[in-house]
Amino acid sequence: MTIRVTIWNEFVHERKHANVAEIYPQGIHAAITEGIGRIEPDFSIRTATLEEPEHGLTEEVLQETDVLLWWSHARNHLVQDEVVERVCSRIYDGMGFIALHSALNSKPFRKLMGTTCQIKWREADDKERIWVIDPSHPIAEGIGSYIDIGYEEMYGEHFDIPIPDELIFVSWFTGGEVFRSGVTYRRGRGKIFYFRPGHQEVPTYHHPDVLKVLANAVRWAAPRHGAMPRYGNSAPIDFV
Amino acid sequence: MTIRVTIWNEFVHERKHANVAEIYPQGIHAAITEGIGRIEPDFSIRTATLEEPEHGLTEEVLQETDVLLWWSHARNHLVQDEVVERVCSRIYDGMGFIALHSALNSKPFRKLMGTTCQIKWREADDKERIWVIDPSHPIAEGIGSYIDIGYEEMYGEHFDIPIPDELIFVSWFTGGEVFRSGVTYRRGRGKIFYFRPGHQEVPTYHHPDVLKVLANAVRWAAPRHGAMPRYGNSAPIDFV
Amino acid sequence: MTIRVTIWNEFVHERKHANVAEIYPQGIHAAITEGIGRIEPDFSIRTATLEEPEHGLTEEVLQETDVLLWWSHARNHLVQDEVVERVCSRIYDGMGFIALHSALNSKPFRKLMGTTCQIKWREADDKERIWVIDPSHPIAEGIGSYIDIGYEEMYGEHFDIPIPDELIFVSWFTGGEVFRSGVTYRRGRGKIFYFRPGHQEVPTYHHPDVLKVLANAVRWAAPRHGAMPRYGNSAPIDFV
Amino acid sequence: MTIRVTIWNEFVHERKHANVAEIYPQGIHAAITEGIGRIEPDFSIRTATLEEPEHGLTEEVLQETDVLLWWSHARNHLVQDEVVERVCSRIYDGMGFIALHSALNSKPFRKLMGTTCQIKWREADDKERIWVIDPSHPIAEGIGSYIDIGYEEMYGEHFDIPIPDELIFVSWFTGGEVFRSGVTYRRGRGKIFYFRPGHQEVPTYHHPDVLKVLANAVRWAAPRHGAMPRYGNSAPIDFV
Repeated sequence: MTIRVTIWNEFVHERKHANVAEIYPQGIHAAITEGIGRIEPDFSIRTATLEEPEHGLTEEVLQETDVLLWWSHARNHLVQDEVVERVCSRIYDGMGFIALHSALNSKPFRKLMGTTCQIKWREADDKERIWVIDPSHPIAEGIGSYIDIGYEEMYGEHFDIPIPDELIFVSWFTGGEVFRSGVTYRRGRGKIFYFRPGHQEVPTYHHPDVLKVLANAVRWAAPRHGAMPRYGNSAPIDFV
Repeated sequence: MTIRVTIWNEFVHERKHANVAEIYPQGIHAAITEGIGRIEPDFSIRTATLEEPEHGLTEEVLQETDVLLWWSHARNHLVQDEVVERVCSRIYDGMGFIALHSALNSKPFRKLMGTTCQIKWREADDKERIWVIDPSHPIAEGIGSYIDIGYEEMYGEHFDIPIPDELIFVSWFTGGEVFRSGVTYRRGRGKIFYFRPGHQEVPTYHHPDVLKVLANAVRWAAPRHGAMPRYGNSAPIDFV
Repeated sequence: MTIRVTIWNEFVHERKHANVAEIYPQGIHAAITEGIGRIEPDFSIRTATLEEPEHGLTEEVLQETDVLLWWSHARNHLVQDEVVERVCSRIYDGMGFIALHSALNSKPFRKLMGTTCQIKWREADDKERIWVIDPSHPIAEGIGSYIDIGYEEMYGEHFDIPIPDELIFVSWFTGGEVFRSGVTYRRGRGKIFYFRPGHQEVPTYHHPDVLKVLANAVRWAAPRHGAMPRYGNSAPIDFV
Repeated sequence: MTIRVTIWNEFVHERKHANVAEIYPQGIHAAITEGIGRIEPDFSIRTATLEEPEHGLTEEVLQETDVLLWWSHARNHLVQDEVVERVCSRIYDGMGFIALHSALNSKPFRKLMGTTCQIKWREADDKERIWVIDPSHPIAEGIGSYIDIGYEEMYGEHFDIPIPDELIFVSWFTGGEVFRSGVTYRRGRGKIFYFRPGHQEVPTYHHPDVLKVLANAVRWAAPRHGAMPRYGNSAPIDFV
């Protein structure tokens, strides 16, 4: 069955900074679209950005989305609360949600976590190596023992998130830090995956293993057709 | 070390309904104060209620609180958002939080969970038996294999919460339902315990085992003196 | 990709007791083969039983097995330790393992758990209702809010297992007990699912929802093609 | 209440190698005894070693032990199976168990885990920094954001253990690896903590923070006085 993917990007850095535009001329969302589409040609992918009406995330778009990817950084505070509610509501209803890099500060991710999502960070000359902690997890399928990202922004523990349901990746940084860089959660009927790397000034979203992880994650996060739980006042149910 | 406990109660049903007042003449908060104080005389317990200024939860009170218990039902929507922020902020900073029964719909609990916290429920003639799932947990200390509550309001699965960090109790109801009735979470440096029983029309907070669980939970949720994580921009740290 | 399934059954009760033979004339393994094969025609299913040489679980059979289902009860102690080692070794290498009902006392399951796997139990006139605790889990796909099994042997908490990686189902029994009846674990690269119902004297393995759960579980437990971790003495790895 | 601690050490390296003897002249067990005894003077500590009759772990000693620490490396295979059974049985009954460093290959730890417990490792010139992942955990109490161990043997992921119940520490190594270096499990009524550092050729057990972690872990792992679950054939229980 075709999985319908929407890749959301605030799309600010790429248009303001020449060094970012050089790496992602059409935007991070375009690079991910192209990259995971190559791996999984049957994904049906669309994109949406901050400056579109309703940020491109109308009720109709969300209803037609199985998995939403989200990259944001500089404009997290400009995302309308109404859209945040709509996104979370659709996640509770089963839509998958993949938060990328600095999207740990996005409104939907913080609302879903219920914590501050704070971190240590550093823009310097760190290299990142991502170790596979759970080699049996479908999100790690096709990945070796580790992924060498090379230069990346550093994010370090403590990462103020709830204890993850699953810990799939842990990052090592040259400067001496570690980070839980691939974690999953369930909220309502929706599956959530956070993946750390993706600083706008390095070509992380052109890295084959990063794209493979994202493609795996989309497949993992796609909704299952379980019964919708019924809530509220309930009479006892007789055995048939 | 003395643990400083604040027991918060919306204190509405007890003043409006004679049948509730008969069970809890001074309010649910008074019954819990008396009950856990008898078990742990070194707890320093105060109470607070909805109608007090700032609901009795000023910054000063929260700073002097190690563990906050919270009972609410009919007036969840009247709790001021500013107080909710203050409570959650203090939890992130280490204060323990114990949500009781219908407080699953309280603003602080829902904010901490990031889910709808919906349930099935029924006010009828169900009896409840609470089974100990984790006999090694400090919150189950001194409890037998199960607690027979007797008549109680039914709450049934699916309970729309994040996957608990720890599952300590599961309830069985006469009418055919089960419920994860004792669960823990960590948010920031704070520990959270949700405990299901406690309908206002039955004498649950006079039950010795229920009070024992609450006293255990207070002790478990009291803050630890770990280091405050430092967040934000960080230079590499040299080995000494 | 075709999933290769082996269904192992001690196949004792069905040949000794007329009431069991009436329900499962060809054995429990045959009923499951027929039942899940109807749901998933692309599964490639074979069976094996206790009395075959090496219990039908030669190295070759295991190498050609993606997921092994295991039903046992009366003859757990007669399973050869060498075969147990072989089965566990293959699980560590990625083979899925589904332990059914009384197989909680089987040698492989107990070795994988590292606990006693003890339970409460009762053969009486209990009915069982299995509630879905995790409606987003692929093993619950296509199942409603609960499964009514009807008459079954009772298994009650405390169930002496490690804390499950995932809790998917909880059972309610007429007599007043609850049980964690659908739980998952990972051991090495292998995924494990334990599913409670399946007493030999009731037609549980003819129940459509039970068969659906087992078919889902096979699909979930099938090996992923992650990298084989390399262990042992390791030189530092340069960034490329 | 006094916690009764037994520190078990195979005590081989310290007597064979001058460089080890220089660091631990009376053995690793003596260093830990002295170190945690200074932090928690009310612990009642005894030691036991491989060469004693029954390795010093008679039924009587175990019955009088609340928490057992275990260091072993070169002689794991010489530990008698009967003693291993006795140790595990006492853990199931509530005794805490703290496995140190290379004790991941000890017979009791592997039996409790049900996995191979394999790792990557390297004896070279790595330094280790241990990051606190769960600052609210009692085992991390009094520890800062991280512990700098300095030179240590490297252990790297993948670490072939079951998914931990709690992940408290993650190690960073100079050479590019990470490791889940502080993890907890429950088996039966017993609590288990594994703590990574502790190579015999470096003075790790003289490090104040390492000793603080061990003292915290002893307190955390001490048995709780929950009800002993009753297993086996059980009649329905009437509500009182």
